[in-house]
Amino acid sequence: MSEQVKTYLKTHREQNLARLNEFLSIPSVSTTSAHKDDVLKAGEFVRDYLNEIGFDKVEIKETGGHPLVYGEWIGNPDAPTALFYGHYDVQPAEPLELWDSEPFEPEIRNGRLYARGASDDKGQVFMHLAVFEAYMKTEGKLPVNVKVIIEGEEEIGSANLYPFLKDNRDLLKADFALVSDSGMVETGQPTMLYGLKGFTGLEVTLTGPKRDLHSGLYGGAVKNPAMALAQLLAGMKGENEKVLVPGFYDGIEHLDEEERRLMNEAPGEDYKRSLGIPETTPEEGFTVNEHTMARPTFEVNGIFGGYQGEGTKTIIPSTATAKLTCRLVPGQDPDEIQNLLADYMKKHAPKGVHVNVKREPLSARAYKVDPKHPLIQSAAACLSSAFGKDTVFVRLGGSIPVVESFDQLYGIPVVLLGFGTPEDNLHAPNESFPVDHFNLGIEVLADYYNECASVDPS
Amino acid sequence: MSEQVKTYLKTHREQNLARLNEFLSIPSVSTTSAHKDDVLKAGEFVRDYLNEIGFDKVEIKETGGHPLVYGEWIGNPDAPTALFYGHYDVQPAEPLELWDSEPFEPEIRNGRLYARGASDDKGQVFMHLAVFEAYMKTEGKLPVNVKVIIEGEEEIGSANLYPFLKDNRDLLKADFALVSDSGMVETGQPTMLYGLKGFTGLEVTLTGPKRDLHSGLYGGAVKNPAMALAQLLAGMKGENEKVLVPGFYDGIEHLDEEERRLMNEAPGEDYKRSLGIPETTPEEGFTVNEHTMARPTFEVNGIFGGYQGEGTKTIIPSTATAKLTCRLVPGQDPDEIQNLLADYMKKHAPKGVHVNVKREPLSARAYKVDPKHPLIQSAAACLSSAFGKDTVFVRLGGSIPVVESFDQLYGIPVVLLGFGTPEDNLHAPNESFPVDHFNLGIEVLADYYNECASVDPS
Repeated sequence: MSEQVKTYLKTHREQNLARLNEFLSIPSVSTTSAHKDDVLKAGEFVRDYLNEIGFDKVEIKETGGHPLVYGEWIGNPDAPTALFYGHYDVQPAEPLELWDSEPFEPEIRNGRLYARGASDDKGQVFMHLAVFEAYMKTEGKLPVNVKVIIEGEEEIGSANLYPFLKDNRDLLKADFALVSDSGMVETGQPTMLYGLKGFTGLEVTLTGPKRDLHSGLYGGAVKNPAMALAQLLAGMKGENEKVLVPGFYDGIEHLDEEERRLMNEAPGEDYKRSLGIPETTPEEGFTVNEHTMARPTFEVNGIFGGYQGEGTKTIIPSTATAKLTCRLVPGQDPDEIQNLLADYMKKHAPKGVHVNVKREPLSARAYKVDPKHPLIQSAAACLSSAFGKDTVFVRLGGSIPVVESFDQLYGIPVVLLGFGTPEDNLHAPNESFPVDHFNLGIEVLADYYNECASVDPS
Repeated sequence: MSEQVKTYLKTHREQNLARLNEFLSIPSVSTTSAHKDDVLKAGEFVRDYLNEIGFDKVEIKETGGHPLVYGEWIGNPDAPTALFYGHYDVQPAEPLELWDSEPFEPEIRNGRLYARGASDDKGQVFMHLAVFEAYMKTEGKLPVNVKVIIEGEEEIGSANLYPFLKDNRDLLKADFALVSDSGMVETGQPTMLYGLKGFTGLEVTLTGPKRDLHSGLYGGAVKNPAMALAQLLAGMKGENEKVLVPGFYDGIEHLDEEERRLMNEAPGEDYKRSLGIPETTPEEGFTVNEHTMARPTFEVNGIFGGYQGEGTKTIIPSTATAKLTCRLVPGQDPDEIQNLLADYMKKHAPKGVHVNVKREPLSARAYKVDPKHPLIQSAAACLSSAFGKDTVFVRLGGSIPVVESFDQLYGIPVVLLGFGTPEDNLHAPNESFPVDHFNLGIEVLADYYNECASVDPS
C-alpha cells in the first residue's frame, strides 16, 4: 500500500478508537427482543459510516428479523471483487455482575479494550471500515472492488441471511469472500484458519407433575424431572467425552497422522492456568488440539429446573430443561445430527416424564478450504509481515454459518482473517480486544486488500 | 365438650375465617431475608391473639433467627399438660405467575381458601387458637393445661428451635405434644399419622472453567460442568429409583407383610390424573404407598447452570449446581447419610471439575409412634366422630423436625392431628385448604382437648 495510506492510518489511530467506542456503546444484543431498537441503531452506525466513506448503494435491508447493511464500491472494473462479511450484533452481556467495567461503556485497561463486541465482531468489522476510509480519503479509490454485507443476527444463527444471500446472487456476486470474525491461537501469533466447525442445537424439556410438588408427600410416587434429565444426558455422553448417541460419528473424516501432527504443533492456550480447571478433558484417543479443531462436540449450554434461590425448598420440580448444541465436522449433516439427538431423547427419556424437544432452526455445515490457495497464502504473508512472525495454519472449533453459505451458494473461496485472541472472553463477561491487534490488524487488511488486486482468485 | 363451646364455635365461623385471612395476608416467607419483618409481623399476630384469649407468659422469644412465640394456660393442676406446636412462617410463593389469585390475598373459590400458608401451617395453627378462644370465652378455662410454641423457621429447617427446646425444658414441660402440620390421605378421610420421615440436604456445585466459555473455541478442551453434574447425579440414582450411593439403605427397617398390607390399603391419590404424569415410578420392588410412606427418597429440588434465557447462547457454563434433599426412614442417621452423599460426590465427580459440597445444617431423624397409644386412639375417635368416617392409620413421607425433637429431648408422645388434603398444593402455587376441613377440624380439636383431660398420657 502507499505511504499516504500508511500515514493516514497511523495518524488516525485515536480517531478510529474513539469512533469504535461509539459503535461498542450500542447494546445490540440480538437474542432478546428488548434490544431490537439497539440492534437497528448499530446497523445505522454501519450504514452512516459506509455513506461517509463514499460507498454506493448503501442501504439497511429488511430481512424479516434484524436488518442487514449493504454497500459497495465497484469503481475498478479490472480488479477482482471482494465480498466482506461481518456482524454488528452481539451476545447478551449477562451475568452483568461479573464484568469489571460496564459491557457497553468501552474502557481500555492494560492495552485491552473491554466491551461486549470488542472482539466479536464489532471491533473487527470496524477495522475493515477504517481501511476503506483510509484508501478513499487518500487515493480516492479502493485497490479492489468491495461489496460489504454486515448483518445483525449472527449471534442468533443468521436465520435470515441465507435467504437473502440466495435471493441476491447478482447483487453479491464476487470473486472471493473475506470474513474477520475469528482469532489467533495466541496473542501476537498470526494464524490462518482453513476450517470451521458446523453447528446444530436443540432444547429438551422433561415434564413430570404439572406443578411443583412437596418432596416429602410425593417423593416415591413420581419421577423427578431434574433427575430424569441428568439420567438422560448422562446416557448421551460418556465421562471419556465420547458421544454415545448411535450414529453421531458416522461418516466423519478420518484424521491422518500428518494433519494430527500439524494440529498438535499449533501453540495452544495453557488451559489449566488461564481457565483454572484441574485438567483438560479431550475425547478419549485425541489430544485437546485435535478435539477442539477437528472432532465434533456435544455441549450443555444451560440447564435449569426447580428452585434456584437462597436456602432450601423441598420440592420435586415440575420441569427440567437443557439447552444443547453440537459443533460439527466435515461429513456430518446438521439436520441428520439434530434428528439423531431428538429421536434419542424421545426414545430414551426415563419413564414417568413427558419429553418435549424444541429444535433450533438454525444450523451450519462444517467448512474447510485448501490452505495452499493463493488468496490464503497471500493473506498469511500479510499477517506474517505485519506481526513479524510466521503464520500458523489451523482449524477452528467455532462456527461461522455464513462461511458455509458462501461456499455452498456462490462457490467462492472464503478467507478467514481473524484478529481475536484466546484471552478475549468471547460470549462471556469482560470481553476485550488487544489495542495492538486492532492497529496491526488494520495494517494487515490495508496490505491485503492491496495484494488481492494482483491475485487470481479463481 | 359443652353445648356452649359448640355454639360459640358454630356462631364464630365467619369471624374465624376473617381473622385467619389477616394472618394469611402477612407474607412471612422465612427463607429469604427480604421478608424478615413480615415473619416478625406474623409472630406478633400470634402473640396478640394469645394475649387476647387470656394466655399467660405470652412472649416473642428471640432465637438468633426468626423469633418464636410462647404462651401458656396452666390453670388446672389436676389435668395433663399439652404442648401445642405450630409454625407461622411459610414457603416462598414463587413462581408467582402460576397463581390464579395473589398468594397473600386470601380468596375462597369452590369451597377452598387459597393463600400461601392456608394449609401449611397458618390455617391449622389458627384452628387451635380458635378452640382456645371458644373455651376461654365460654367456660373461662381450658379442659387441659396448654403450652403453646409457634415458631417462624419451620420452612427453613427450625435451626434455632432445637437449642430453644433444649434450653427451656422446665418452661415447656408437658405430658404430650400436639402438632397440626400434616394432612389426610383424601379430602374428608380422617387420617391418623403414626410416622414421619427424617430429612437431610446438600447442595453441590461443580466448577469447570472460571468463566463461561465459547462452546466452539473450547469444546473438547474442558469438561462441561452441566454435563458433569448430570453424570454425577445419574450415578447416584438408577432409573428404577434405587439410590446407588453405597450404604444409603444400610440398617433401615424391614417392612413386614402386615405393615405393607396396611399401607397399601390406605386410599391413595390418583396421581396420573391429578398430576398429569404418564405413570408413577416407585422404587423397584415397592408400591407407591410403600415408597412414599416408608422408603427413603433422594430428590433434586433444583438444578441450574449456564444460559437460561430466550434463544441460544453457545457457551460452556462455568458452574452447575444441584440442590438435593433426602427423606429418611427409621434406622437412617441424617448426618451419616449426608456424609455418605457428600463423600460420594467428592469422590465420584467426573474429572476436570472442582467439587464444592455445601451441607444443609438442618436435619431430622424419622419418627414413629405406637398407633395403639391411648392418646392416638382417642384422637382417632374424635376424627372419626366429626368426619363421620373410620380413621385410617398411615405414615407420612414428609418431615416435621420438631416431632423428632420432642421425642428425643422430652420423651413425650407426639400426636399428629393434621387436616390438610392432597389437593392443598403445599410448597407450590395455588396452595389452598378446604373450608370444611377448617370448620370440622376446629370441632375435632375442641373435642380432643376435652377428651385428653381424662386420658392417661404416660
